[in-house]
Amino acid sequence: MSYDPDNIFAKILRGEIPSHKIYEDEHSLAFMDVMPQVDGHCLVIPKERFRGLLDADATVFVHMMPVVQKVAKAAVKAMAADGFQLRQYNEHAAGQTVFHLHFHILPMKEGVPLQPHTGKMVDHAGLAVMAQRIRSELT
Amino acid sequence: MSYDPDNIFAKILRGEIPSHKIYEDEHSLAFMDVMPQVDGHCLVIPKERFRGLLDADATVFVHMMPVVQKVAKAAVKAMAADGFQLRQYNEHAAGQTVFHLHFHILPMKEGVPLQPHTGKMVDHAGLAVMAQRIRSELT
Repeated sequence: MSYDPDNIFAKILRGEIPSHKIYEDEHSLAFMDVMPQVDGHCLVIPKERFRGLLDADATVFVHMMPVVQKVAKAAVKAMAADGFQLRQYNEHAAGQTVFHLHFHILPMKEGVPLQPHTGKMVDHAGLAVMAQRIRSELT
Repeated sequence: MSYDPDNIFAKILRGEIPSHKIYEDEHSLAFMDVMPQVDGHCLVIPKERFRGLLDADATVFVHMMPVVQKVAKAAVKAMAADGFQLRQYNEHAAGQTVFHLHFHILPMKEGVPLQPHTGKMVDHAGLAVMAQRIRSELT
């Protein structure tokens, strides 16, 4: 299994496709999932090119995980959620659809289940509002 | 939300309850989930006392994540899986049932869905065999 440099997240990293950014530094990018399974569903990716955790260098965690935690806390606050799920899928059998390593952050509220992954993009204006709300909790 | 030192994983760490261990070092423990949602379902926990990622020090990732990756790769090999899901739940609303930080490693095969979390423990002999198979892929 090799890395395809034309996957959607690689294009986002190169600025060829827009995204609703939450956080960016030298090593990591956080942005809204355009097919959210719950309000505030966002993603954290490394800038290094890894398909997933089966091929990633273990060094990838050093910068990425503190960002995952920071963005997750902000997303929970911004959505007034009661907790969150962290998910990371490796290969098609595990539900991976974009083959650039990514962590899903899913803010969860008591009694509100995840929506199935429909493959339908949601309204960009709504995503922009969510991204702004999460960014404002990061500081 | 505070840490309850009498949660099941704290008892496993103190040796008060047995577990099917896969890996252990100074900072982390990996063992079989006794209510597996798929063959090879195992858990990685830090020895430090954190409820989840909402209260954990960011330093927890340094030792834990390389163990998560190493055990996941071994579990995928041992189960002849096609990939894996990594999941980590924070608080009841997100499906957390044991309130000591833990990562689920779920080896996945093409076309085989996760079983629902039934709350029923499986046969210990079967878990012992799985743990042995995963351990043998760690070296």
